[in-house]
Amino acid sequence: MENEGVYKVAVIGSGNWGSVAAKIIASNTIKQNIFHDEVRMWVYEETFPSGEKLSETINGNHENCKYLPGINLGSNVIADPDLENTVRDADMLVFVTPHSYAKGICKRLAGKIKPKAKAISLIKGMEVKKEGSCMISKLITDVLGINCCVLMGANIANEIAEEKLSEATIGYTEDKEVANRWAQLFATPYFLVSIVEDSIGVELCGTLKNVVAIAAGLVDGLEMGNNTKAAIIRIGLKEMRAFSKLLFPSVKDNTFFESCGVGDLIASCYGGRNRRVAEAFARSGGKKSFNELEEGVLQGQKLQGVLTAQEVFEVLNDKGWEGQFPFFVTVHKICTMQLSPSSILKCGSVHSSIQLVP
Amino acid sequence: MENEGVYKVAVIGSGNWGSVAAKIIASNTIKQNIFHDEVRMWVYEETFPSGEKLSETINGNHENCKYLPGINLGSNVIADPDLENTVRDADMLVFVTPHSYAKGICKRLAGKIKPKAKAISLIKGMEVKKEGSCMISKLITDVLGINCCVLMGANIANEIAEEKLSEATIGYTEDKEVANRWAQLFATPYFLVSIVEDSIGVELCGTLKNVVAIAAGLVDGLEMGNNTKAAIIRIGLKEMRAFSKLLFPSVKDNTFFESCGVGDLIASCYGGRNRRVAEAFARSGGKKSFNELEEGVLQGQKLQGVLTAQEVFEVLNDKGWEGQFPFFVTVHKICTMQLSPSSILKCGSVHSSIQLVP
Repeated sequence: MENEGVYKVAVIGSGNWGSVAAKIIASNTIKQNIFHDEVRMWVYEETFPSGEKLSETINGNHENCKYLPGINLGSNVIADPDLENTVRDADMLVFVTPHSYAKGICKRLAGKIKPKAKAISLIKGMEVKKEGSCMISKLITDVLGINCCVLMGANIANEIAEEKLSEATIGYTEDKEVANRWAQLFATPYFLVSIVEDSIGVELCGTLKNVVAIAAGLVDGLEMGNNTKAAIIRIGLKEMRAFSKLLFPSVKDNTFFESCGVGDLIASCYGGRNRRVAEAFARSGGKKSFNELEEGVLQGQKLQGVLTAQEVFEVLNDKGWEGQFPFFVTVHKICTMQLSPSSILKCGSVHSSIQLVP
Repeated sequence: MENEGVYKVAVIGSGNWGSVAAKIIASNTIKQNIFHDEVRMWVYEETFPSGEKLSETINGNHENCKYLPGINLGSNVIADPDLENTVRDADMLVFVTPHSYAKGICKRLAGKIKPKAKAISLIKGMEVKKEGSCMISKLITDVLGINCCVLMGANIANEIAEEKLSEATIGYTEDKEVANRWAQLFATPYFLVSIVEDSIGVELCGTLKNVVAIAAGLVDGLEMGNNTKAAIIRIGLKEMRAFSKLLFPSVKDNTFFESCGVGDLIASCYGGRNRRVAEAFARSGGKKSFNELEEGVLQGQKLQGVLTAQEVFEVLNDKGWEGQFPFFVTVHKICTMQLSPSSILKCGSVHSSIQLVP
């Protein structure tokens, strides 16, 4: 089966979404001659009580029994606990780690990758720094000096693992040929991929939607019904768009109509884990903290939406933009227990064009 | 309480949404001096087995016990079974009938209204004619010779009746002052209203979203999960936008980000009755017809989405546009049992930008 295709792929990360990404990619590399069959996947090694290692069980059973149980990844996915070895020969690097690890991993990879390698980031979140906030794809480009596209959802990983119809958007900056190659690597009959020349817009969609998903979960916990939930999601989308364009004027309106925008937003507001934990939070009357609930509901995984709400708030605070983004500010203040869950219902009126007669 | 405010309002229609509209309006006319307190609501008279008439019970109990039980409409809502009498003194006419009755009612009203009256349509649907399709607001303007705005959702009537937070969009064509007056009539702290200079776009959103809601219900019935549902809704929104702009080039992209667009779409795809019946249809394996299911689920009400899918299909067919709108065509063919419910999963790939390697 092995071939000597032009492009060799490495997946950096092997969590739930990383494992699904490796599965999709492996199903394509084996079929398309331009790609080397083997997909090397970096595994942050874990040792089970039995003494067996996570990477060994993946290579033995072609299944990630911890983060994606029950799904065959393909025999051409090779788990590798050695980060440097994973990337050494790779022409295409797929970054799919938790966003808080991205910077550390990039630093470890500097000087260890092929100089002409290309990257794609599936990571949601941003680096907030005093000197200006920075998207993960830019972090990768800055630290490694390579082109970096992004691929964003809608991607509820387990549903894609079951090969249920899904869409995704690839954002690129200049090099359409590279974007097309990424699309070829990812697209399957059940995973529809479109490319958009707006890398930052695509990445911001994937990142900010998690904040809106928190708000959607709050509405679920408050049992306000579909109309209210739709209103809150729409107001969230409006602030996502306004925030993105204010921060990066190159961001295009059209991007928000793509799968990474309205598609991922809807999937996350009805199905994701940010929504789930926020619902539990509202049901507790805001008495249990998000940290406490994450433990119970997510079993050790961190909630992206709460982190992103904090990051967005820091940007708003730094720029003096709080007044224009009552929705984002409210979500952050609810997450940090400065406001009650039902405050989310009061942040919409700023966005309606009618001043009520008092 | 009675005052002699400048503008007198009549509501033409008293179904579920019409009754809620009358309630909202009545809560504002009583508070704002520019409106006459009384809101006259035309009731298509029905006689109950007890011999009592619908209009009498509304005026006696300030409640529409048939179409909006349990909700106080306000004592200033006056039910009137006489259509001409309802509109005679009205300066502001709110049209909220089933869309198939709109034309007949307009014809009955011709010459019977104040010449300077203004209208607003809350009706979803379009008139498909050989000489070109026509929105309901244009029908009203053409037959009655008056300005007609539109107000579209998200509006799941019962949730608004309970004063849960909702948004709506008013579309206008030229006269912003009139649009603002309508907004003042409708806006409440729980019913947030924005105005948009794109009457046709707003009306098309309200109309076409029902077709997408059918597709969303099919996905629910097929138990495909949140990712697939989000993809189908997004693809539907894409065709809504493309169809609207092709048919009426003045339609603005921004309108689809308003409540009438993405807000109403989400609410209808998760909460509306089009979704509900389509889910039942898919669960029956497409064996029970929509007509049959409407009987059981809707108790005599007609399903707007099926009618609109037919109207849209006629337009596509007439213009030779079927190839560009596989989603709309597929929904119509599923509704008419020419295709199986699961066909909805196959119409998305046309809209992804990647051609799969066979």
